[in-house]
Amino acid sequence: MCNRRRLGCGEKHSRQQPCLWCAGSRRSQGRSNLRKTMTTPALSIRPIAAAPATRSEIGFFGGKPIFDVPLEIVRPRFPALDTFGARFQDALRSGNVTNNGRWVLEFERQLTEYLGVPTATFCNGQTAMMAMLRAAGIAGGEVIVPAFTFSATPHAVRWCNADPVFADVLPDSMCLDPAHVERKITSKTKAILGVDVYGIACEYAELGELARRHGLKLLFDSAPAFGTRVDGRLVGGFGDAQMLSFHATKAFATMEGGCICSHNDALLKRAKAIRNFGQDPVGDCDEAGINGKLTEVCALIGIEQLKAFETAARARRRAAHRICAGLEVLPGLSLARPGSNQEPIWLYLPVVIDKCAYGLDRDATTVAFAKENLHVRKYYSPPCHHLKAYRGRQIEKLPHSEAIAYNVIALPIYNDMTDAEADGIVRVFVDVHRESKRIAQALG
Amino acid sequence: MCNRRRLGCGEKHSRQQPCLWCAGSRRSQGRSNLRKTMTTPALSIRPIAAAPATRSEIGFFGGKPIFDVPLEIVRPRFPALDTFGARFQDALRSGNVTNNGRWVLEFERQLTEYLGVPTATFCNGQTAMMAMLRAAGIAGGEVIVPAFTFSATPHAVRWCNADPVFADVLPDSMCLDPAHVERKITSKTKAILGVDVYGIACEYAELGELARRHGLKLLFDSAPAFGTRVDGRLVGGFGDAQMLSFHATKAFATMEGGCICSHNDALLKRAKAIRNFGQDPVGDCDEAGINGKLTEVCALIGIEQLKAFETAARARRRAAHRICAGLEVLPGLSLARPGSNQEPIWLYLPVVIDKCAYGLDRDATTVAFAKENLHVRKYYSPPCHHLKAYRGRQIEKLPHSEAIAYNVIALPIYNDMTDAEADGIVRVFVDVHRESKRIAQALG
Repeated sequence: MCNRRRLGCGEKHSRQQPCLWCAGSRRSQGRSNLRKTMTTPALSIRPIAAAPATRSEIGFFGGKPIFDVPLEIVRPRFPALDTFGARFQDALRSGNVTNNGRWVLEFERQLTEYLGVPTATFCNGQTAMMAMLRAAGIAGGEVIVPAFTFSATPHAVRWCNADPVFADVLPDSMCLDPAHVERKITSKTKAILGVDVYGIACEYAELGELARRHGLKLLFDSAPAFGTRVDGRLVGGFGDAQMLSFHATKAFATMEGGCICSHNDALLKRAKAIRNFGQDPVGDCDEAGINGKLTEVCALIGIEQLKAFETAARARRRAAHRICAGLEVLPGLSLARPGSNQEPIWLYLPVVIDKCAYGLDRDATTVAFAKENLHVRKYYSPPCHHLKAYRGRQIEKLPHSEAIAYNVIALPIYNDMTDAEADGIVRVFVDVHRESKRIAQALG
Repeated sequence: MCNRRRLGCGEKHSRQQPCLWCAGSRRSQGRSNLRKTMTTPALSIRPIAAAPATRSEIGFFGGKPIFDVPLEIVRPRFPALDTFGARFQDALRSGNVTNNGRWVLEFERQLTEYLGVPTATFCNGQTAMMAMLRAAGIAGGEVIVPAFTFSATPHAVRWCNADPVFADVLPDSMCLDPAHVERKITSKTKAILGVDVYGIACEYAELGELARRHGLKLLFDSAPAFGTRVDGRLVGGFGDAQMLSFHATKAFATMEGGCICSHNDALLKRAKAIRNFGQDPVGDCDEAGINGKLTEVCALIGIEQLKAFETAARARRRAAHRICAGLEVLPGLSLARPGSNQEPIWLYLPVVIDKCAYGLDRDATTVAFAKENLHVRKYYSPPCHHLKAYRGRQIEKLPHSEAIAYNVIALPIYNDMTDAEADGIVRVFVDVHRESKRIAQALG
């Protein structure tokens, strides 16, 4: 039975789906759990909850959905072909379409300038992460990763013939808990691989201090975090190296693509060799490489996307702030609380749902939202230590990772999200909460 | 001292660069070494060697080069943007540019139809090979690979946490020697990974028999062999699975790309899951996957390339036959001799140079050729067991691999090579051989 009954929760929770609050109360020992607010937005927003209802029935019961056109989890925006088509046509005509050609080099130059750190592009983020890990020399050792992340994180470690060791996350940032990381360090540990989940930068300073103290490499899976700023600096140049993804779903997208950023010349040089089958200039190989090369057309799109990115970043933050401000007035919703020294890019906006207070659990909420044409995702569920590929390796419970993973939904945030869309998302929460009892009864 | 002195060779050869003939004579024990002919071409060609010289001096000594425009090692041909631009623009506008979208599915359907075997595309051939190997369950075991291949072959094995074990190649086909493979099989062996080097299909039947007898998986790195036919069938459906590359340098090119072909449904299904981070439909993962997804634009280019491929294949074979016919009259040149049951696509045309008979070694020949604007490559040199990444693992000498790797040049073959270009390549060989003594003296 849930020990938060005093706050209105009298549910029985399964082991796989612990109550957010129970899990928190077992581990946090008085520390604030997932906070119910995020950094106060700078925007002045009239809470949508106060908006008058204009329909007699919600979408779940056959009413007109809030959104006429479905709001999918992503809405990628790419430049029109005519903005780069002539250069692409030239590349096709010349045959120079890959192998670190003219436009890849130019794109890397522009990225290096924009991010303020030397950068090497790759065909995708996962390949970049594998090259980064191998270049950091982790093969044969252990790498500490958060349990709450996309499965790509531990997978990359395993492809490098190393063992991912799962640590719990903090309830506020949803990122690696440095204190728990320290308890996971053994003589086999080679590196800490922090994850900037949803584009929220993990605790760079604390993890940096920890890595220094234990002589470990500090690497970041910053796949979702292109555009996030920490202490005013763009993510990219922190730790020993960072990986960013340019996948179509990302805020900065080149269709497929990714990069490694590092101030460590030797690491970046090694990663570049790995990107080209490990070859040196005379055709020998020090180590096993891969094909990690980005195509010229992806680089051309990246060059165009860079021109529009700051505008897109502002739109994403505005939408996220607007939604958060609207959700603050609702019960049972917990938002991430990144440190005040950072501005996340908000790849998605995570909301952890407390069934007791909101009236519906995460899964029922997702169903009801879809009827309003709002399509959210259960990113990232299950937590990685519960995936079949890693199950049984971790006896210890990771309460925050589990509580978040089994109760979170990821809301869409777009590069061109309108205020009306952001307000509509809030209204979906409001209306579904209002009718939560009827929905729960209907769902049985 | 070379033991082929009776044939005119009195050279001292280094351990790293053995004489082709010495190496052969040590191991072949009477079997014919690299033959001096290839399968007789079906074309009627007037040997270029009989053509009158029209210049007073060769390129090496300042004469007009044979080729006005440099003949590079590859001359990729891609469709014009307007043949697929409208569909690409639609993909950009919709945001559906990757993640196994409409055009990737259509491309896979067409490939499956063309190759006659179920096919799954990947972002590049190396990623496809890694997925194929892991899907075949080789992790933790040994995989027998030829020593004479591009380094990507053993690298892929190592990324799957398995050990590449190098076997020698046959002098005729330059591909895995089944007899030597059998001597390399141990209790740890999980698979044989044959390589269709230069697009020459390796001994499928003999390796198949061997794999069956020992209960091993039989896989093929057929990266260069898209379009090669064996017993009239296109490469793709042999063994347990085959990997094909669509890299820009290949006869069939999508910029970057590759595929796995297999009649084994379970293997292909597993490879497809690995391609998408190992995810199953409900978001769990049985095993560590990667991002192996091909972009829509590469698929669109592939669809266009398929339309023109048979014409390109004929042009490649015609050029290869024309060059081979011309080279037959020259001393000191050994050509590959694929089985008569196959028609290779000839990604490149390999020529092994006997310094004693031709008058120059491989390196000097390469220099002299460049002065005629003919840019050849030393593919694949050094042999893989001599790469730093694998050195020391193989005590045994692999004489044919070494003899070929240290004496071979790869000649360009294009999808649109003209007869004049093919004849010009022969003429370069003729002229450089005629002046070989002077060139050797000049090079010191």
